[in-house]
Amino acid sequence: MADWQEITGGVTAPRGYRAAGIAAGLKPSGLPDLALIVSDVEAIAAGVFTTSHVKAAPVDYCRQRLQGKHSARAILCNAGQANAAIGNQGWLDALENAMMVGQALGIPSESVLLASTGVIGQRIRMDALKAGIPKLVAALSETGSDAAARAIITTDLVTKSIALETTIGDRPVRIGGIAKGSGMIHPNMATMLAFVTCDAAVSPSLWQQMLSRAADRSFNSITVDGDTSTNDSLIALANGQSRTPAITEMGAEAEKLEAMLTAVCQHLAKAIARDGEGATCLIEVQVTGAQDEQAARQVAKTIAGSSLVKSAIFGRDPNWGRIAAAAGRAGVPFEQENLKIKLGDFLLMENGQPLPFDRKAASEYMKEKAATDASMAEDAIATNMSNDLSVDRSTVKKQRVDNPVVISVTLGNGSSSGIAWGCDLSYDYVKINAEYTT
Amino acid sequence: MADWQEITGGVTAPRGYRAAGIAAGLKPSGLPDLALIVSDVEAIAAGVFTTSHVKAAPVDYCRQRLQGKHSARAILCNAGQANAAIGNQGWLDALENAMMVGQALGIPSESVLLASTGVIGQRIRMDALKAGIPKLVAALSETGSDAAARAIITTDLVTKSIALETTIGDRPVRIGGIAKGSGMIHPNMATMLAFVTCDAAVSPSLWQQMLSRAADRSFNSITVDGDTSTNDSLIALANGQSRTPAITEMGAEAEKLEAMLTAVCQHLAKAIARDGEGATCLIEVQVTGAQDEQAARQVAKTIAGSSLVKSAIFGRDPNWGRIAAAAGRAGVPFEQENLKIKLGDFLLMENGQPLPFDRKAASEYMKEKAATDASMAEDAIATNMSNDLSVDRSTVKKQRVDNPVVISVTLGNGSSSGIAWGCDLSYDYVKINAEYTT
Repeated sequence: MADWQEITGGVTAPRGYRAAGIAAGLKPSGLPDLALIVSDVEAIAAGVFTTSHVKAAPVDYCRQRLQGKHSARAILCNAGQANAAIGNQGWLDALENAMMVGQALGIPSESVLLASTGVIGQRIRMDALKAGIPKLVAALSETGSDAAARAIITTDLVTKSIALETTIGDRPVRIGGIAKGSGMIHPNMATMLAFVTCDAAVSPSLWQQMLSRAADRSFNSITVDGDTSTNDSLIALANGQSRTPAITEMGAEAEKLEAMLTAVCQHLAKAIARDGEGATCLIEVQVTGAQDEQAARQVAKTIAGSSLVKSAIFGRDPNWGRIAAAAGRAGVPFEQENLKIKLGDFLLMENGQPLPFDRKAASEYMKEKAATDASMAEDAIATNMSNDLSVDRSTVKKQRVDNPVVISVTLGNGSSSGIAWGCDLSYDYVKINAEYTT
Repeated sequence: MADWQEITGGVTAPRGYRAAGIAAGLKPSGLPDLALIVSDVEAIAAGVFTTSHVKAAPVDYCRQRLQGKHSARAILCNAGQANAAIGNQGWLDALENAMMVGQALGIPSESVLLASTGVIGQRIRMDALKAGIPKLVAALSETGSDAAARAIITTDLVTKSIALETTIGDRPVRIGGIAKGSGMIHPNMATMLAFVTCDAAVSPSLWQQMLSRAADRSFNSITVDGDTSTNDSLIALANGQSRTPAITEMGAEAEKLEAMLTAVCQHLAKAIARDGEGATCLIEVQVTGAQDEQAARQVAKTIAGSSLVKSAIFGRDPNWGRIAAAAGRAGVPFEQENLKIKLGDFLLMENGQPLPFDRKAASEYMKEKAATDASMAEDAIATNMSNDLSVDRSTVKKQRVDNPVVISVTLGNGSSSGIAWGCDLSYDYVKINAEYTT
């Protein structure tokens, strides 16, 4: 049983945080496009960023800031323009944005972190952003998480948000998060962004270690189309406002906090995978019997990322051959005589050999997991076809991430396991990604 | 200028080879499904096989044979059943097949190599194969290459065949090849297979080195959907029947031979990529300015394999952002300020920044490369929908591999370059791979 409960409030659920999201005129659509998250006090800050060698200016900026000092007060995020691939101007714009936010909040610009998402190769509409900052600061509120979550999305079908609460030393400790993704639905469109807030008191190095491990078990374990973006960023703040004892080394309390941080990241990551372009269901691949966790995750990711597996699941085809073939090419040695594959409760393969099973029932199992709301996919296509960076999806129902198609693979007798998440590959993926205005 | 000319004859173009292909009743459709290539004399043999950890029995068999001795007389290939994932029975069937072919040809079974392609998890129809062998041997002919090429295909739209001739020491030397692919169009369907014959005299270790390098620059540089199969095999024979001096070390003649071997492999590899499921065009990605060839090829393959790039090209969208993003995540360090991207003759990006270009003309450039014969794709879908392992495509026009969409990427000032090939991602890819009979 999980050692925490879900609460409302997103990134403003933890104590000492305010957030805001407004329409500043960066998106041509006029929809919300500027978000700000602020901690009442300087917070320990950790980050995980894209490994791409083509990086956006705000990514370079955050990496430099977090190398210099491991704390921050604010995160500014704009949607509409990615501030990537525009040369030195992007760097200058990033510096100016941090300065403007710092001045508006009365804090050093060094305490401001940045993220951008939108069209690569386009400069941020600086006039609009500049005019928006006073409005944005004025809108900051302890219930502002949803507004911020809406302002960071681009072609996402739904906003992604979560908050969890546990107790440490009899006092409540909370972690909240918002995210946007997935993939690069729109031509030239970045990105995966996630912002996490926490009110525990943690040492900087421990917080960074926890975040890196949590990222490996969540955002780095999802795959939509294998394309890493120039802007991918995960930033986590911990401001100590829960007034719980400082956690400075691993132990029972640190483990509890890390488990909850991982759960927050996994919820957001699954929401991103489920929101993959054209996806009709979430896929969860559980690999056991591996020599180490890294190997298990590698096999899980290869299966979840296989175009053949993804399109079989879209076709509701219980195709053990594709799962076995993907496992085999993952670069992780195993004896094929030990390979065991399950789809839900259906045992498809054991000891490396296929078993008879009820194909029709296994296909039904997958059908049941698919989205019942077909209009969701239609909305996505209409949106992307219109070449509009975003539409208002504030009315869209909450993302379901608790009902995945589950593939279980056992590699051998090893004691390690790993999980990865993905989505199926539909006609609509191709439609969304192919039919751009030329 | 190439140092050779194209000739007819496929794998029977080089001296001292015969081939045959017959319908033995392995495929439910009754189409050709059993092929044999025989050298008049024991030939030097080299092989490159799947790196998957889930391997078919004939792959294990060939690897063991070629570790023991580096020569062979015959290659037997069946289509219909992959002889993969059926446990020890697959190994026993492989041994029996080699024995039967050896007896029929009056040669040691150790001189027989094997390959299979078809449905994973199904045992070869041994009765049909056994009954077919005498017919197959009787059909061997010096003009049998086309029959063999037809008998090894499964859901391929076209057969793949090439032969080239050069001169060494004033005497003609020839290399021929046939192949099947691509990808795993059909559920549970392997595979990429290629068989190459040569009449030069080469030492075993040099021939293996040449083949390994040629494979890196051809079959290992194509990507259809990233899914390596359990049965992938490339086997090359060199029987010395050209009566040219033995080539035992690198030098001018060895380089000439290797260049021609590489050209044969590249032709077959490009034909496989062009025949990708649902593909409407061949994509060639040329990467220059890299630190080494391996790095260049890695970037080229990542771009050619990107679902976003592939669907953009299907949509005829000159999308430099996706190309830049794919290059950035290839795992090869470079300075993004040096990045240059061209599509055909259109310069899209220079010094890491997008340039203005004629989008309409660039889109037209891609349109012109697409297959004019739309019926080809329709055939593919009809075939795959019918769940029939193969249809007779002997009348299909010759595969065009000389008209790719060319993406050129310069990473920096390095002196190394590399090329990769792929195909676009269309609705039909999803259709072919999703809609199986359940």
